Parts: sequence; C-alpha cells; structure tokens
Amino acid sequence: MFMQDSDSIGIVSARRVHFDTPLSLKSRAVLDSYELVYETYGELNPERSNAILVCHALSGNHHVAGVYADNPKNTGWWNNMIGPGKPIDTRKFFVIGINNLGGCHGSTGPISINNRTGKRYGPDFPLVTTSDWAKTYVRFADQFGIDCFAAIIGGSLGGMSAMQLALDAPERVRHVAVIAASARLTAQNIAFNDVARQAILTDPDFHGGDYYSHGTHPRRGLRLARMLGHITYLSDDSMASKFGRELRNGSLAFNYDVEFQIESYLHYQGDKFADLFDANTYLLMTKALDYFDPAQDYDGNLSAAFARAQADFLVLSFTSDWRFSPERSREIVKALLDNKLNVSYAEIPSTYGHDSFLMQDDYYHQLVRAYMDNISI
Amino acid sequence: MFMQDSDSIGIVSARRVHFDTPLSLKSRAVLDSYELVYETYGELNPERSNAILVCHALSGNHHVAGVYADNPKNTGWWNNMIGPGKPIDTRKFFVIGINNLGGCHGSTGPISINNRTGKRYGPDFPLVTTSDWAKTYVRFADQFGIDCFAAIIGGSLGGMSAMQLALDAPERVRHVAVIAASARLTAQNIAFNDVARQAILTDPDFHGGDYYSHGTHPRRGLRLARMLGHITYLSDDSMASKFGRELRNGSLAFNYDVEFQIESYLHYQGDKFADLFDANTYLLMTKALDYFDPAQDYDGNLSAAFARAQADFLVLSFTSDWRFSPERSREIVKALLDNKLNVSYAEIPSTYGHDSFLMQDDYYHQLVRAYMDNISI
Repeated sequence: MFMQDSDSIGIVSARRVHFDTPLSLKSRAVLDSYELVYETYGELNPERSNAILVCHALSGNHHVAGVYADNPKNTGWWNNMIGPGKPIDTRKFFVIGINNLGGCHGSTGPISINNRTGKRYGPDFPLVTTSDWAKTYVRFADQFGIDCFAAIIGGSLGGMSAMQLALDAPERVRHVAVIAASARLTAQNIAFNDVARQAILTDPDFHGGDYYSHGTHPRRGLRLARMLGHITYLSDDSMASKFGRELRNGSLAFNYDVEFQIESYLHYQGDKFADLFDANTYLLMTKALDYFDPAQDYDGNLSAAFARAQADFLVLSFTSDWRFSPERSREIVKALLDNKLNVSYAEIPSTYGHDSFLMQDDYYHQLVRAYMDNISI
Repeated sequence: MFMQDSDSIGIVSARRVHFDTPLSLKSRAVLDSYELVYETYGELNPERSNAILVCHALSGNHHVAGVYADNPKNTGWWNNMIGPGKPIDTRKFFVIGINNLGGCHGSTGPISINNRTGKRYGPDFPLVTTSDWAKTYVRFADQFGIDCFAAIIGGSLGGMSAMQLALDAPERVRHVAVIAASARLTAQNIAFNDVARQAILTDPDFHGGDYYSHGTHPRRGLRLARMLGHITYLSDDSMASKFGRELRNGSLAFNYDVEFQIESYLHYQGDKFADLFDANTYLLMTKALDYFDPAQDYDGNLSAAFARAQADFLVLSFTSDWRFSPERSREIVKALLDNKLNVSYAEIPSTYGHDSFLMQDDYYHQLVRAYMDNISI
C-alpha cells in the first residue's frame, strides 16, 4: 500500500497498439510496421470529442500521470498537471500519453527487433521527425475513432510535436497548447545538441550505433550529454540558489574528484540517465529537435507556414528559460496572430529555467486550468 | 616577406626564465623549481615604472602580440590591442606576456619533465590557483627589478589573475584592468567546466592523466570540452547571425554526419584545439577558474575581500557576454567603490559574447586607450 494525493490518477498501466500499414517517413525511409506504447487517463466520451494527446519532450515517454502497481514510486512526468480536479482534468478529458516512434520505452525504436533481420534496429532505425510523429498521432486517433482531438499539448519538443500536428492535420485538432517551445532551434540550440551527439558518437563503446551486438553501451557519452542537457534545462539563478559554490566536503581537495555540490548533482543526473536511457534514441530525439522548422518550406516565413493551421492556441513561456526563451514563443504568437488565429499567450515569471514547464506553479497551473476549462467537448 | 600593419609589434620571440626558489602552492604542494616562458614588447624605462603584465585566459599563452619570424601567421592573441600606437601603446609601455605556471606552451606544467622522476609530471603536477600565479608574477617582477607594475591587465581568467595580484600584493601594482571577468564562478559556470573536465577524465585515452607514457592523448574529451567552451564564448545572437540554421550541403541528410554549418564550425574548432593543447593543462586551468573566489575567506563578502586592494581599476564588461555577464562585473565595481577605490566601469554594447574582449571594437579600444593614456609612468 502507498499514500497518494486524492487528486492522483492512481494506478495506471501501459498498453500497446500495432500498426501494419507501412509508414513513409520524411527521410524517405519506410517502416513496414511499428508499435506505439501508450497510457490513457479518464474516459473517452460517447461523442469521442474529449481526447487530449500529451506529447513528451526529449527524454520523456508515455507515462505522463499516475503510478504503476508494481512500482508505486514511478510517477508520471506530468502528474502535477493531469488528474481528477487537476488543470488537465481527467473527469472531463480522456488524456492520452504516447511514447513517440523512435523511443526506448516500448514504442518501436532503435532497441526494437527489426523483423527483417531478427536483430535490433540499432543504427538502421531511420531518423524521425515531428512530421512523422504527427502521422502516427493521426493513425493512433483513427484506431480510437477520434476524428478530432479536443487538444494536443506538450512542452519543449512536445510543444513542437503539438504544433506540427496543427500544421500537418489541421482538421484533426481543435486546441494546441505549446509550452516552453520554439518554432525552430537557434544555432546555439543546435550547437548544444551537437556536443551531446558528438559525446555519444565518439564514445568508443558506440560502435557505430550497433553497441547492442557488442554488449556495450556508450555510457560515458550519454552521461556527458545528459549533464550538458541539465545545465541548459536550469537557469543560472536557480543553480545559484540551489547549489551556489557550496562544497561537498567543506574544503577544497585540489584534485579532480567532486568538490562542488553542483558537480555531485550533475554526476548523479548523468549516471542515472545513462543507466536508463538508450543512446540511439537520445541521438534521434536531438535530431528531431534540430529538424523541426515549419517555416523552412516558406522561405523562413513562419506566418506563411501557419496559414494552414485552424486550431486555437495556448502559448506559454517562462521568463528564466534560456533554452527556449520567451522571445521564441513570441515569434510563434506573432505568426498565429498574423493568421488571425485565436491565441492566448502568457510569459510566466519563473526561476526554474526550461524545466519550469514540469514544475508545480500556481499561476502556471491556473492558466492551463482556465484554458482547459473553456474547451467545449 | 609578409605584410603587416604599420602599428604591429612585428617579429617577436619568446624567452625563458628559471626560478630555483621553491614555490609553496595553495594546495600545499611545493614546486622545487620552475620555469616561465614570456615575451616582452617595448622597452623597460630606466625608472622601471612602465611595465604592464598581460594575463592570459583559459587557453591563452605568453604570445600576446606580434608574430614569429619562422611562423608569420602565428599572431599574438591580443595583437589588435597591443603595439606602437595601439590602445596599449608599446611606445610608452613595456608589455610582458607570461605563460602561466601549469601551461603547455613552455612554462612548467604537466607536460614538463619532473626532475625528481625524469618523466613528465602528468597527473603529478599540482593544481595551481590564481594566488599561486600572483606569487609567480611577483617573483617575475623581482627578476626584472620591477618594484611595481604600472598595470596588470587581463580578460576572463586573465582578469581574475589580475585581480588576485591586486589583492595578494597590493604594493606591486598601480592599475588593474579587469575585462569580461567575474569575482567568482557561478554554479552554472562551474557546471560547464565540470562537463568539460568529465569529458576528458572519462576518455579511455586519459589513463589517469598519464597518457604521455601510454602514447595517447584524450583527444575526444578535449575536443568536446573545447566545443562546449566555444558555445559559451559566443552569444546566442552572434551564432544566429553567423550560422543560423544554414545547412552545409543545402539539404538534410537524415543521418549523423554534419548537417548544419554550426556543427561544422564547432568540429573544426574542437579538432584544431585537440591537436594543439594539452588535456592536463586544460583540466588545471578550469580548476583555477573554479577556485578563484577572493570573498571566500570573508564569508562571501567581496567588499571585505577588496579592503586590502590599493590600485586603481578599470572594469569592462560586454552586454552579450553570458558566461561572465555585466552583472558579475558590477559586483566587482560595487566592492571597489565600497572601499573608495578609483574605478572606471563601462558596459560595452557588443554582440560577440564572452569573446568580445578579444575583438576589434572601436568603442572598447577607445576606452582602454583613454585609461592607458592616463597612467603616469
């Protein structure tokens, strides 16, 4: 037995859906078949008009809310946002979390067995884009008889995935919540991703991505990638107030062991991640970030790119987020307004940096709640 | 023959000075003897009152201005600042560049032969601090009969080294120019250094720092460290305007080869650096950065720490520098003013990020020129 919030989803379990229709990807590769693992919270109403798809970020997955019966400490990554009475209220909505294609938590990805070879895909798994994911979201909705999502919601890469569906299948979604995201990565964003990838690609244990058959894992590289990622998820201020220059053992040792608490924290985060996540999936997810650029086919004109969108939008940014700063969100808002789309925008005061979108914050949650409450089902 | 500016120093050459008096370091290690390699530009006046010491940053060295006869393309790293008629005018000043103790360009450091063992120091070379360097600067001045430097000047880590001398030997310097520096690294700064160090320390070719005897060099790690460093030296805006999302080959390849120009640039910088610099020195220099914290012995009170300073100060920051932001410089200025010291401060509009201190910029150079012109010799 374990204690839980009265407004928690409670025990949930993941399910799996198989797709046999070949999927043509943006890279021109074709997947003959694939599986998606997902969770749902709440009930799909008879009109099938109350479905909300939640898209995950770089290292997220389908386990968005609730806990598992056999692992009650494994709480979904957005459990503070989703549940009965929570901002995304599961008494009203049927909420779906999907592990994206290419993931390493159950959906078909590099660690999956390639039926053509009987071995893991590894480096043969094609690179996927947010457009490919949008296709899979539509097929997933078809499977459930959902003609139109009430909303698609996501933070960071999840926000980009949500925007992509609104662009690629405008008739399939009524509301889009884009949180702590960007219409395209800047050179600096791509640069950070590049360093993370190079850490993995140049790890001697990477073996060209076929480390499964070598019995290795590019743990060093993945650890470095995650450590670097973490710095960019936090703000300078939040790191200063949480760690400052605090020493781990009270005095300097004048060697290369951990001396500052911030080092200890980063190593812990890096080690934990390297033990749990797949390096090929990490590489692929950073590429999906780099590739997202809806304005690319419109000479960089984001307003032109959004001309095909029909949904209403909620766009949220956080003042301390320097990975995807409020300026990036305002670019999205401008493009939406240029197309006379309904958009609610808020720049939320926060010290937690990019990670703010995952945090419990009353003002943030009230904004989401107000928006969700107004969605008709 | 080669062309050069009329105001260039012209051909210079490095010299070497040997110190036989044991040097007690902050780490409590003692170096029995050591050498420093240095260059000088201009003439020491009979009163020995016109000497300026230039301190280098993380990967810099003693080659500050001019070129080498046998390598006319190897221009000193601050050649735009120092020379006849330049902001630091060698017709007035005797300018000295030193490679810091622990360096890899000629001064005693990890790649030097340890006389006790007949082998390279490697991991046995002690970690050094800005306070240790300040001691070496004083001894260096003694060697030249310089009782008091007219000025000590540096950017980034060099600015910290300059501040340290003003604190540790206040009677030995009249003016201090602190450019793009900080009174202490933030948790975020330390975190970036930590990732860089972990990249090197976990490189299988590192061999606990004794890679010399293994015939290897932790090239992968050093390359990653430099790539990451480069991102933090540039501003988001300068990367956007220089590289943006420009593709290297016009279209996406959907693989892990270089796709964006920014990746190509970073790889080039990382490769070049990994071929030229020593990994142990890189580690050591990042630690010198982390350790610099004059307020540490004063309960974090920087004003109390600066009570012993006597020099006049020029403090300069750059608006786009997010590694050592103007806010960090203003902390230094406040501490100086609290002690009623003379300080000139300017926040220079710039888009080049931390690297701005190395750039040719008229306003910046005019400020330095005006300050230097006013120094009496």
